[in-house]
Amino acid sequence: MIQKPSIPKGTRDFGQREMAARNYIFDTVRSVFKSFGYSQIETPAMENLGTLLGKYGEEGDKLLYRILNSGDAFGAVDFEKPLAPQVCEKGLRYDLTVPFARYVVQHQGEISFPFKRFQIQPVWRADRPQKGRYREFYQCDVDAIGSKSLLCELELVQIVARVFELLDLRVCMKINNRKVLSGLAEVCGFPDKVVDITVAIDKLDKIGLEAVEEELLEKGLTAEAVEILRPVLLLEGSFEEKLAVMRSLMGASAEGQRGLDELEELFGLIRSAGVVMPCEMDLSLARGLNYYTGAIFEVKALDWQIGSICGGGRYDNLTGIFGLPDMSGVGVSFGADRIYDVLTGLGKFPDDISSGADLLFANMGRAELDYVLPIASALRGAGLSVEVYPDAAKLKKQFDYCDRKGMRFLSVCGENEVASGTVQIKNLATGEQVSFGVEDIDGMAAFVRG
Amino acid sequence: MIQKPSIPKGTRDFGQREMAARNYIFDTVRSVFKSFGYSQIETPAMENLGTLLGKYGEEGDKLLYRILNSGDAFGAVDFEKPLAPQVCEKGLRYDLTVPFARYVVQHQGEISFPFKRFQIQPVWRADRPQKGRYREFYQCDVDAIGSKSLLCELELVQIVARVFELLDLRVCMKINNRKVLSGLAEVCGFPDKVVDITVAIDKLDKIGLEAVEEELLEKGLTAEAVEILRPVLLLEGSFEEKLAVMRSLMGASAEGQRGLDELEELFGLIRSAGVVMPCEMDLSLARGLNYYTGAIFEVKALDWQIGSICGGGRYDNLTGIFGLPDMSGVGVSFGADRIYDVLTGLGKFPDDISSGADLLFANMGRAELDYVLPIASALRGAGLSVEVYPDAAKLKKQFDYCDRKGMRFLSVCGENEVASGTVQIKNLATGEQVSFGVEDIDGMAAFVRG
Repeated sequence: MIQKPSIPKGTRDFGQREMAARNYIFDTVRSVFKSFGYSQIETPAMENLGTLLGKYGEEGDKLLYRILNSGDAFGAVDFEKPLAPQVCEKGLRYDLTVPFARYVVQHQGEISFPFKRFQIQPVWRADRPQKGRYREFYQCDVDAIGSKSLLCELELVQIVARVFELLDLRVCMKINNRKVLSGLAEVCGFPDKVVDITVAIDKLDKIGLEAVEEELLEKGLTAEAVEILRPVLLLEGSFEEKLAVMRSLMGASAEGQRGLDELEELFGLIRSAGVVMPCEMDLSLARGLNYYTGAIFEVKALDWQIGSICGGGRYDNLTGIFGLPDMSGVGVSFGADRIYDVLTGLGKFPDDISSGADLLFANMGRAELDYVLPIASALRGAGLSVEVYPDAAKLKKQFDYCDRKGMRFLSVCGENEVASGTVQIKNLATGEQVSFGVEDIDGMAAFVRG
Repeated sequence: MIQKPSIPKGTRDFGQREMAARNYIFDTVRSVFKSFGYSQIETPAMENLGTLLGKYGEEGDKLLYRILNSGDAFGAVDFEKPLAPQVCEKGLRYDLTVPFARYVVQHQGEISFPFKRFQIQPVWRADRPQKGRYREFYQCDVDAIGSKSLLCELELVQIVARVFELLDLRVCMKINNRKVLSGLAEVCGFPDKVVDITVAIDKLDKIGLEAVEEELLEKGLTAEAVEILRPVLLLEGSFEEKLAVMRSLMGASAEGQRGLDELEELFGLIRSAGVVMPCEMDLSLARGLNYYTGAIFEVKALDWQIGSICGGGRYDNLTGIFGLPDMSGVGVSFGADRIYDVLTGLGKFPDDISSGADLLFANMGRAELDYVLPIASALRGAGLSVEVYPDAAKLKKQFDYCDRKGMRFLSVCGENEVASGTVQIKNLATGEQVSFGVEDIDGMAAFVRG
């Protein structure tokens, strides 16, 4: 029976072009991570379900892909009890954060802390597929764990700045601090409403001051509390001006003042290090609120409308659930799919990333191959990417192949070239054709390299 | 509840050292594949079970990891019928070959044939874990599909030779041809016993001539048939000598003579292209016999006892099951785990692949950071990998970190250096310490680069 081939909904094949574009992004972040001394790790796609369950909330548990036990999975099940837990012991990685926490605890004896690691691997989520949301996608995380120093935050800011500088994207980094948000909730008298308050403030740009204040009242805040928060909603000016307003607003909240201290120190370090990327304090940034304990980061592209393309923050108890308390860390995750979309939208991928080989030798028959094969080998040795067309097909067909694969140079070595010991190489873009002596590998390589 | 962290049996974490070693192998093969004009693709980890089932034999079907349908997988099942097929529609990739075939058929309209692709991705098998056998491991496949030219075979031989030259491993490539094996079975009168005959011949080195002949008799061959095959068992000498014996033995078998033609042409091309790696005709090579239709390849390390570290062959109907007949292709697969073991065993990994950053700046406090941070940034810009220790900890602790992470250079910038505008950098291996003016980034970079 012939099967019409397809792949599961929400998954993708990556062809030459997509791979080249994605590798361009990954190679860029990888080179930057390495230049800061971060080292790469990989963890298995399958984790024990015990490692994954309960880490992403009830909704997250439902989105985990479970793997049926091998062998006779249903052999000894009790049909009176829920079946899934009895027949599945393993699940696919849902993100890179929980496997990282597991890794740190499991390998703590071998790790030199502070541990600076990065990880670029796919994750799987049984989400409803839709435009821009996939069931298999790559995450690209960089974290430093085992130090509370704000130098770690600075390093991430520097990494983000350098990555987007290399990718030639104009971005802005928004920075908040969880302690400031807690302090705000504290000074207005509703310490348990941190999330409601932040979510409301976050809508300021979209719905305006009055609507935000209405929402705060709806969420149960008093008019006095809303009054106290108003300066936050009106906050503007330089970092120093915002900080001064917040300092006075925060008053006696020790937590809030500590958060402001951290922001002040981090912005000082950013200035010291000469970071050019614009960074701004943004108190509405609520990302991963239940999780982060200090700095919160988010990066937006300035020239393309899309959600955040990178984000993260500091967490204080990532590894606690696996038995290693008091491991403070900070990390960011680069959204490879969105960065891909922005680079595509702005036409920022370099022209040559998905090109094929540099040079094609046409196949003129067996006798000419004896002449061409050693030359092709020598040119590869000189660093070029070289193809020899496999069949002695019509030249038209060979030219088409050369063209469709985007090769820029072509060489046709026939009887005459063999007899005269020469190699003609043609630049297909300019039409320029140069003749080389068969020994002049360096000359040929230089011509193709341009 | 605190969970003791672990990973599923047969899976592995890859730390900095293992990653660096593995990336060294992958980067090497990738660079060689690209130099021959092969382009990289990736397919999803999850395939529809319909794509995978029945492709690896009954045993293979049992080794597929199945993924439980998301949502209420057991909601509508008929408990009278087998459950697994009702609750699992997807499975994890078992190899890269079947997904490649599916890819070629699904994307045939976008592909320029001959299609030269490589793919480096993990695969999963519910095999019993044991030493050197994992449930998750990387495959590294390179194939050319859509041409019957033996130039494709040659290219793979060249690729193999170049990869192991770059990895500095001495290897030998054994080459057989399925058509020759069919011819042998034909001329001895047992055309349906190709596999039995090849398996028996394969044991020659281990069990000797007599035992092989006994086995052939046990498998039902007549004494006359065994007599006919004896020259194959006694085959020795140069390629030409072996070929002459085989030509006469093969007599009127058109299939067998075609196989010998192919071997002769391929060895001629190998000579033409100047391949230095030893290649030998080996008629006992039976690898993937049910699958290959022409050339069969296997690569062995000469200085380390282990099974084959690379292998492959030509297939004529890979894509037929998905509705695209007559697509001949040829490919090889590099065994990354075994190559890793050989490189480790022979101490052939370069010394510097798993080293940390080049240089650590000690952290002497906030004031000195203002001085150090821009220097560290500039050195990264100059291409170095540079860390700044995050905490102003005791120098002993900072030195230990530097040492454990294998960094080769250290700089301690204290009050004196700041005051005098200098930077001391120490080579930890030699003890040499050099002082640079703070502006002399090029000098510092050159010293560290060595």
